[in-house]
Amino acid sequence: MVNFELTREYIENLRSLIAGKDEETISALLEELHPADIAEIYEELTIDEAKSLYFLMDDDTAADVLTELEEDDRKKFLTSLPSEVIAKRFIDKMDSDDAADVLGELDDERQREVLSHIEDVSAAGDIADLLAYDEDTAGGLMAKELIKVKENWSIPTCLRSMRRQAEEVDEVYYVYVVDNDGLLKGTLSLKRMLLSSVDITVKDIYNEDVISVKVDVESEEVSNIMDKYDLVALPVIDSVGRLVGRITIDDVVDVMREEAEKDYQLASGITEDVELSDGVWHHTRARIPWLLIGLVGGILGSHVVESFEGILKVYTQIAFFMPLIAAMGGNVGIQSSAIIVQSIASGSMGLEKTWVKLLKELSIAIINATVLSGLIFAYTKFMGLDNALTATVGVAMFSVVVFASLFGTFIPLLLNRLKIDPAVATGPFITTTNDIIGMFIYFSIATMLFTALH
Amino acid sequence: MVNFELTREYIENLRSLIAGKDEETISALLEELHPADIAEIYEELTIDEAKSLYFLMDDDTAADVLTELEEDDRKKFLTSLPSEVIAKRFIDKMDSDDAADVLGELDDERQREVLSHIEDVSAAGDIADLLAYDEDTAGGLMAKELIKVKENWSIPTCLRSMRRQAEEVDEVYYVYVVDNDGLLKGTLSLKRMLLSSVDITVKDIYNEDVISVKVDVESEEVSNIMDKYDLVALPVIDSVGRLVGRITIDDVVDVMREEAEKDYQLASGITEDVELSDGVWHHTRARIPWLLIGLVGGILGSHVVESFEGILKVYTQIAFFMPLIAAMGGNVGIQSSAIIVQSIASGSMGLEKTWVKLLKELSIAIINATVLSGLIFAYTKFMGLDNALTATVGVAMFSVVVFASLFGTFIPLLLNRLKIDPAVATGPFITTTNDIIGMFIYFSIATMLFTALH
Repeated sequence: MVNFELTREYIENLRSLIAGKDEETISALLEELHPADIAEIYEELTIDEAKSLYFLMDDDTAADVLTELEEDDRKKFLTSLPSEVIAKRFIDKMDSDDAADVLGELDDERQREVLSHIEDVSAAGDIADLLAYDEDTAGGLMAKELIKVKENWSIPTCLRSMRRQAEEVDEVYYVYVVDNDGLLKGTLSLKRMLLSSVDITVKDIYNEDVISVKVDVESEEVSNIMDKYDLVALPVIDSVGRLVGRITIDDVVDVMREEAEKDYQLASGITEDVELSDGVWHHTRARIPWLLIGLVGGILGSHVVESFEGILKVYTQIAFFMPLIAAMGGNVGIQSSAIIVQSIASGSMGLEKTWVKLLKELSIAIINATVLSGLIFAYTKFMGLDNALTATVGVAMFSVVVFASLFGTFIPLLLNRLKIDPAVATGPFITTTNDIIGMFIYFSIATMLFTALH
Repeated sequence: MVNFELTREYIENLRSLIAGKDEETISALLEELHPADIAEIYEELTIDEAKSLYFLMDDDTAADVLTELEEDDRKKFLTSLPSEVIAKRFIDKMDSDDAADVLGELDDERQREVLSHIEDVSAAGDIADLLAYDEDTAGGLMAKELIKVKENWSIPTCLRSMRRQAEEVDEVYYVYVVDNDGLLKGTLSLKRMLLSSVDITVKDIYNEDVISVKVDVESEEVSNIMDKYDLVALPVIDSVGRLVGRITIDDVVDVMREEAEKDYQLASGITEDVELSDGVWHHTRARIPWLLIGLVGGILGSHVVESFEGILKVYTQIAFFMPLIAAMGGNVGIQSSAIIVQSIASGSMGLEKTWVKLLKELSIAIINATVLSGLIFAYTKFMGLDNALTATVGVAMFSVVVFASLFGTFIPLLLNRLKIDPAVATGPFITTTNDIIGMFIYFSIATMLFTALH
């Protein structure tokens, strides 16, 4: 298989083949491609072009392509198909976790309809089980397909059963060992199987050190565990310890990427998952909420400045450094929040108490504030500005940097304690609040110093 | 194995055991733990406490713990040990990729010294090979340990060879198939092996569809490929197509996390990798560079405002909306850059030409600008503000939002074309430039409108 790179020419060529109904050439092209590549191509086509492609693929490929699509595109596509086709051509060919994810995007009635068309009742039951879990938990991430053996089996019994089970499972990373009640006991690594002879029982060679999670563990924690222990697959147990599923690394990689993207987008003031290729309306909807918050903040800020109109009228030069003070407050606040948000997300908050964290942040803030206010004082002095202005800018810089550091550290810690995603604190919220309070500090200091020094 | 959670009590208890030299209890505690957990504990201890722990672990565990440590802590620890101990107790017990990563952190002379103490010359040679690759490429990520079989081997020959090879390899995900020249031909999945009988040759059952990368492919692309195709291991080939190593998903998960963290930190104005637990000095160093850029930007901004002192002296109320206009320019700019940076990082730039992207951004910008300037116009009108100010704020809002959108989109695209990490564009750079240009636009419009309307 050649590593595929999508080009405009490729799409144009394919489009003209579709228009010319050259099914043979298209089938040959599709056969060379990985489902993930076909999904990429699909996103460049109209829905009718895409449909005509679907019916040229074998069922397994078609199901894989559907799994790889962006959620929006998949929804559009499924809406245009009858439930029976969805059940037999797609859901039936998928792993239970993918099947549950895809079905979970449809409304309840449609879900029931599709499930009723799946002939294998136990498979339909597995999917229905998975649909019951919250999608942000281990239960929502896991698949039912796995290979398990009983601890008291002999190796030949084991191998026979594994051969049968392996037909259902896409990738075999671990063989799980359970007791007669289905309780998870350990794992049997394939390497170990490669290396051992046949005249022993599972009990003798399995590994008892198995890391597992309960079904209701949050997906962010699942991803931290798999990352920390370098796991490729993680068994999932119910509340009494019975093995109910397994989570594979590819699903967790998606969770990690989504988490990281979400935090990044929140820090940049984007409230919805949005891709470059999404439409203008989607982009606008993702961006405007934070901008409206910024607008309200800016209006409040204008009243703060207005309340100092008197001194500003007499000493216009105070306005020169407004953008500097506001910007520094914003920058320092974002820096402080980002470090907290990232530590919380990666589970590396360490053991320090909150007041120790704030005290450390205060030391950092005082160093930065001293450097920055020293530099700006030297600059304003060198430029021969008015003494009162020189003093104001220096003192305000110091105060605003220290305030913004503590505020930026405290807010995400507080949100986290209130069980609100601390990433919300980053971005426009911190900047806007810092702007307002920064302006208030700046003008208050200006009023005091200009009155005293003039 | 119990899922471990580190607490202050646990550390205090351990510290008193170390102080009391209760080696038996400590050994028992350590045996229950995963190397990743021990690494976490290590980071809470002093270097002498940590050293005493190291010599209570068996060699394999000690090597794993060393691999799991934070780079800074590992460096400190290794500096305090003689080369021979590093070679025999640590490097010798590691997979080649981890060994190369750890050695790569030492200086060249120390590397040579350590390598000279490794008895197995071929292992030392593998590590030396790996050290030659840039750490941000497929060569820098890969391990030499893998299982390969020749395409013309019979299954019994194959199994014998695999048993031998498996002893060297930690996890077996795929068996690679090569020809007599060592060229990569395909893979033999373990599932396939479980299902097939022994009376055939490799040629008959191997899978030709293998995705591979060349040694010099960048690690960001490696991670995108493994994510897109849901791979657990990716074979690496040299420039003529010979199999030289394999990359496993756990290493790539680390790359993904680091990339995401780096982009997030750049967007938040942090220039060095910094953890909450790092010292005050490290934090200050990570934060001050961007703050200095902000300071310079703010000083330039003060000159822009100063150049409009004349009009500001007469119409002080212009200052009221300075923070609003500056903040909106900053917010819009960051939103626009973030979307581009994220698309570039995830390889989902799509096929649109640059001018199409800019045109789309222009449409989004015009919609947002119309909404925001409409709202602020309605507000200022409702508050009964001066006509000239009402007009100025509305027109400036529209202009600044449109400008900041295009600027925020264009700069990362330009940086990317110049092969500079586009993430640099986000954070203080965009905000600061937008502040300055935003102020210039605002005051220029104010000058025109106040002169015309008064």
